[in-house]
Amino acid sequence: MSRTVYVNGDYLPEEDAKISIFDRSFLMADGVYEVTSVLGGKIIDFAGHLVRLERSLNELDMQKPEAFDDLLDIHRELVRLNDIDEGMIYLQVSRGSSGDRDFAYPSADVKPTLVLFTQSKPGLADSPAAKTGLKIISIEDQRWGRRDIKTVQLLYPSMGKMMAKAAGCDDAWMVEDGAVTEGTSNNAYIVKGNTIITRHLGNEILSGITRAAVLRFAKEAQMKVEERSFTIDEAKSADEAFITSASTFVLPVVELDGAAIGNGTPGPIAARLREIYLEESLKAGV
Amino acid sequence: MSRTVYVNGDYLPEEDAKISIFDRSFLMADGVYEVTSVLGGKIIDFAGHLVRLERSLNELDMQKPEAFDDLLDIHRELVRLNDIDEGMIYLQVSRGSSGDRDFAYPSADVKPTLVLFTQSKPGLADSPAAKTGLKIISIEDQRWGRRDIKTVQLLYPSMGKMMAKAAGCDDAWMVEDGAVTEGTSNNAYIVKGNTIITRHLGNEILSGITRAAVLRFAKEAQMKVEERSFTIDEAKSADEAFITSASTFVLPVVELDGAAIGNGTPGPIAARLREIYLEESLKAGV
Repeated sequence: MSRTVYVNGDYLPEEDAKISIFDRSFLMADGVYEVTSVLGGKIIDFAGHLVRLERSLNELDMQKPEAFDDLLDIHRELVRLNDIDEGMIYLQVSRGSSGDRDFAYPSADVKPTLVLFTQSKPGLADSPAAKTGLKIISIEDQRWGRRDIKTVQLLYPSMGKMMAKAAGCDDAWMVEDGAVTEGTSNNAYIVKGNTIITRHLGNEILSGITRAAVLRFAKEAQMKVEERSFTIDEAKSADEAFITSASTFVLPVVELDGAAIGNGTPGPIAARLREIYLEESLKAGV
Repeated sequence: MSRTVYVNGDYLPEEDAKISIFDRSFLMADGVYEVTSVLGGKIIDFAGHLVRLERSLNELDMQKPEAFDDLLDIHRELVRLNDIDEGMIYLQVSRGSSGDRDFAYPSADVKPTLVLFTQSKPGLADSPAAKTGLKIISIEDQRWGRRDIKTVQLLYPSMGKMMAKAAGCDDAWMVEDGAVTEGTSNNAYIVKGNTIITRHLGNEILSGITRAAVLRFAKEAQMKVEERSFTIDEAKSADEAFITSASTFVLPVVELDGAAIGNGTPGPIAARLREIYLEESLKAGV
């Protein structure tokens, strides 16, 4: 059965979901997005994603879509229409189409394009990767300078996933000036003893919604958290490593550039944080 | 009257020119483009743009669109259908749509999306800016690392145009590690005596088709060409400055960050190069 997706106020069969070739996300990557998970039919961390979306729009002087205040209802309606138990909801706001191409932003009467669609992923919370762990390669971070804004400029992360695939691995961590920034679509962490180390926030990385929740849970569980840069060498000699993202939650990393992390199997702290995150998120889902 | 545009083999009224919301250029900026000028109904520097398009596709492991060998015919047909005397033809190849969103590239049976449209610009060759000159600001270059590939990741250049506008200027030159890379959608030059200085090619800038032609004409006219980095300070003390691009040809720069370049009026070398470029291009147009 065809998915029902949302485009500018309409709920449509996915085959009919089209936008103008003049849309600025198509022509100029002038758009921002969010991906929210669904577990047990409930939307996870919705409030956090909404706050970040609003920030992305503000940073780019982009108008809020008219339906901004109805976004939770739209998310819920898409979950209902597509009978999503576990999966994701993708949301994109584009600066819209003036009907032509111009580098300058269009006038205020050009309204943003709002697109949402679901991705059903039964078993999302029970990912085999949580048991086997991920193999990661490191690649140079070639992205633009404002990674704190969640834009659709995802070509390099996409290239990074393909480089990982070509190397027989699952994903890539990006390195800039000798330090790990983040994964292609996730935040990166290492563990030394009882201390969790992850890059400090700044323009260099996305402020992960799952990152914020996991660091909060870690502190509540009496773990020490250090928000600072770390190198690939430091990561290779760590006791554990893991990633977080809205759609993978917490996943252990067991190999980095061919070197085993710790004993080469998923570590207990990543496992514990995954457990806590899933438990708490399910409780707080809306 | 509505434009006729080209989408994947069809010539359509622009209002009907739509692509799937799952197209990778919309979701991930996974697309490349070219802009070719039309003068006197002839297409300028077509061969150069085609070579660069093929290189962009290769660098990104993107399939050639099926109509690749027919691109000149498609350009000509759009010129004819839209009765273009002076203007531009925009071409974009997207990696296409698998019908869903995934960072990994789709399988080879997913065909690229090919879009072309015209922009009629009567008076393009007789731009008032050629007489008045451009006012430029300098901004930090925040773009990704592979600017030699002509991708649609144009959000930062677009932001740069808006920063220039806010400053009451025409455009921005981008600066990285103290040196000018290029303009938001053009190559940047300074002139000292009989020497034209412009950034050397590399991953940091686009290899401009108009840049190549203008440097060739400059050498033929016995001017000296130095392809090397230069700073904003060096530019401020230059005798002249100018930009080149496929749609502006050669345009003089008369002010940089509020400082007059030379005597603050368009310089003779930029004027001469514009004249030669337009003359030669018109002769060679197809």
